[in-house]
Amino acid sequence: MKARVNVTLKPGVLDPQGAAVRHSLGSLGFAGVDKVRQGKVIELDLTENDPIKAKSQVEDMCEKLLANTVIENYSVEIL
Amino acid sequence: MKARVNVTLKPGVLDPQGAAVRHSLGSLGFAGVDKVRQGKVIELDLTENDPIKAKSQVEDMCEKLLANTVIENYSVEIL
Repeated sequence: MKARVNVTLKPGVLDPQGAAVRHSLGSLGFAGVDKVRQGKVIELDLTENDPIKAKSQVEDMCEKLLANTVIENYSVEIL
Repeated sequence: MKARVNVTLKPGVLDPQGAAVRHSLGSLGFAGVDKVRQGKVIELDLTENDPIKAKSQVEDMCEKLLANTVIENYSVEIL
């Protein structure tokens, strides 16, 4: 079973990577980009076959390792 | 208009970040994780209101800046 985790910075947390991307897009001539936020996507192959158990296991992984819950939000999709 | 870009390493390209995550998950006692791949997610706020034009603009950004198309795949979603 595959799972995808999206980890994004919480609103209000400074995102220097996103700001750098926005600045570079401007330099390359892409106008009309208001805001850029950059996050991580983590794709996991799990041996667990029950989608409910798999989701709860992945949420546990997010809390313990994949996301820094002080500054980041995460969402888990089971594919 | 918002767009989300997912950038992932092409299959076969070594992913040391993913391997490190998998190893750490094992150390934390999460068994049953076969493979981990880590990518980037970039969220853009665009002033363009036409979804078709916005998508083509974002694909252009991916080719020029957001993804390294030699080793990375990207997908664009207009939200």
